[in-house]
Amino acid sequence: MRLEDLDTPVAVVNLDKLEFNIREMAARMREAGVCLRPHVKTHKTPVIAHIQLREGAVGITVAKVGEAEVMASAGVEDIFVAYPVWGEAKWERLRRLSHRVCLRVGVDSEVLAEGLSQVFAQHGEKIAVLIKVDTGLGRTGVSPGRPALELAREVARLPGLELKGIFTHEGHIIRDFGSVGEIDGPVRDVARKMRETAELLRREGIEVEEVSVGATPTAHLMCREEGVTEERPGTYVFYDATNVGFGVVPEDRVAFSVWCTVVSVPRPDRAVIDGGTKAFSSARSPKVEGMGLVRGMEGARFAWANEEHGVLDLSSCPGALRVGDRVEVVPVHVCEAVNLWDELVAVQGGEVEAIWPVLARGKVW
Amino acid sequence: MRLEDLDTPVAVVNLDKLEFNIREMAARMREAGVCLRPHVKTHKTPVIAHIQLREGAVGITVAKVGEAEVMASAGVEDIFVAYPVWGEAKWERLRRLSHRVCLRVGVDSEVLAEGLSQVFAQHGEKIAVLIKVDTGLGRTGVSPGRPALELAREVARLPGLELKGIFTHEGHIIRDFGSVGEIDGPVRDVARKMRETAELLRREGIEVEEVSVGATPTAHLMCREEGVTEERPGTYVFYDATNVGFGVVPEDRVAFSVWCTVVSVPRPDRAVIDGGTKAFSSARSPKVEGMGLVRGMEGARFAWANEEHGVLDLSSCPGALRVGDRVEVVPVHVCEAVNLWDELVAVQGGEVEAIWPVLARGKVW
Repeated sequence: MRLEDLDTPVAVVNLDKLEFNIREMAARMREAGVCLRPHVKTHKTPVIAHIQLREGAVGITVAKVGEAEVMASAGVEDIFVAYPVWGEAKWERLRRLSHRVCLRVGVDSEVLAEGLSQVFAQHGEKIAVLIKVDTGLGRTGVSPGRPALELAREVARLPGLELKGIFTHEGHIIRDFGSVGEIDGPVRDVARKMRETAELLRREGIEVEEVSVGATPTAHLMCREEGVTEERPGTYVFYDATNVGFGVVPEDRVAFSVWCTVVSVPRPDRAVIDGGTKAFSSARSPKVEGMGLVRGMEGARFAWANEEHGVLDLSSCPGALRVGDRVEVVPVHVCEAVNLWDELVAVQGGEVEAIWPVLARGKVW
Repeated sequence: MRLEDLDTPVAVVNLDKLEFNIREMAARMREAGVCLRPHVKTHKTPVIAHIQLREGAVGITVAKVGEAEVMASAGVEDIFVAYPVWGEAKWERLRRLSHRVCLRVGVDSEVLAEGLSQVFAQHGEKIAVLIKVDTGLGRTGVSPGRPALELAREVARLPGLELKGIFTHEGHIIRDFGSVGEIDGPVRDVARKMRETAELLRREGIEVEEVSVGATPTAHLMCREEGVTEERPGTYVFYDATNVGFGVVPEDRVAFSVWCTVVSVPRPDRAVIDGGTKAFSSARSPKVEGMGLVRGMEGARFAWANEEHGVLDLSSCPGALRVGDRVEVVPVHVCEAVNLWDELVAVQGGEVEAIWPVLARGKVW
């Protein structure tokens, strides 16, 4: 079956671009001597995780226990839950999962470390733990330096926990500086904070095997920073309009798009497509005009959307679209867009090669 | 099982509030002598459609054929697909569906009317059609007056189509005027456009049985307008933070919320919850500060979110939340939030009464 025979809206993965993106990142990390542990929240699709592993990833990263369970069920054997998992029910799920796969989990508070410790220790078991350090994002994590040391001491002291290292997500760099051309200094700053924190812990006799960082826009610089052992980029498998806007990759590198059909052309300067926020999400980005990029149509501006309607402004190319025409849209934020779909259609040379169920979609717990 | 025993994040429907909302709207329409045909895109859940029908709705409204198929499979017998459905594949699905349920569909262009006509006429069958009129939203639809008349003539002429009437979605009123206190004039204006268009068609000998309008914020006024035969509100089953912001209902009328748990309190003025854009969507509204309303905590501002993290700003109530605390969040836009969930938990008096699968979730085609 060919791409043009698929009814719309349909979420399409360009297989050649996907494999290129995966191989390029893997090669970059290999050359730098840094382990690659991609965050699979972007694709939520076990078969893509397996391509990443085949191309050299040491394991995967997830945010939620539910995602880890899906990936483990699909044969992934090394999983980092990079999230402050809270509560008896989830700690017990982590413990069961740790019998089947190599598991590590993030921690950013003493109260969480204590709860986790208790569940594992009472069964004479252990879980590998990394301490989350906030290097500027302002979300979760302890501050670098002394606060990280204090939590590390506590983790090292608690039974049932095995301190593996420290990790951060430097997503604030591209958010605050807005272009890959401007981030060398901020990347060095984050790397320095992580390195100094690791050294502080080591001086206190605490072993720090892993210094893990992660964000697609900064990956190519961060991997060359001294002391970094692991990277956890996510969106690089597909990239999206935000990555293009930040200058991370040119538009033709984006491997995920949604094909839509024009269902209404009320005026020559307006076309309405059959995909809206249920196809793309309502994500916006300061670096993307409107709701996404219309591929191959520079004049078409994706002005606004409701759930099932996407409104294209054709002021600069009036009459360019007719009812029944098909358009390809690159979403603003691909992770959120993928989460809306039950299946992705993998296409190569215009032919449908596979239908991939998005098995970890919606796994928020 | 009690609400507080459910692990988070979890999407919760307050059954008492839901039934109150459904009954109030039904009573209002009954008193006005207007048919109620709710848009089920808000809940996507057959059991809720059945409650609406039991309380007096004449049928339901959907946007996509896939939603109609799910609702038909669940026993709903009267369905309006209020969308310009395009293409052979979908027209054939509509034809099959029309054998099992009472079906009507929207049309806003001649090219669409012709395609639809051909599929039904070649089997000697007919589909009921309503013409979409754009009364100011600027999305799909023909203009009121002559353009509507011209399309109506074409539809009346084509075999396989049975013209039932005209419809509009007046969602622009609350968008442009921003408060239910300011909309009397604009509502009268939309009603007048619809009434005059219907009269124009009738003067030409075209029967117009249905003059259908629909939007929750304007429903209470629109139902009293002369000439309106049907209303299609959607969000009123649940309401959301946007409706509260517009002054449509007070906050305690909202029947849908997401319960989350605080997983990190890096500083007294910041709490991070385990729900982000995968729990609430990334919808924003000019009438809502941030990503939603934190119920029962006036000082907590839902500042920003990523997929799995919600960041609460506690500047006005530092220290008010600790790791492990539970918070209830009302989303900005409930239709988009519901589309992220596979199940809703229906709760009454704090007890879990039912788990409802969101069967029409993600049906974008």
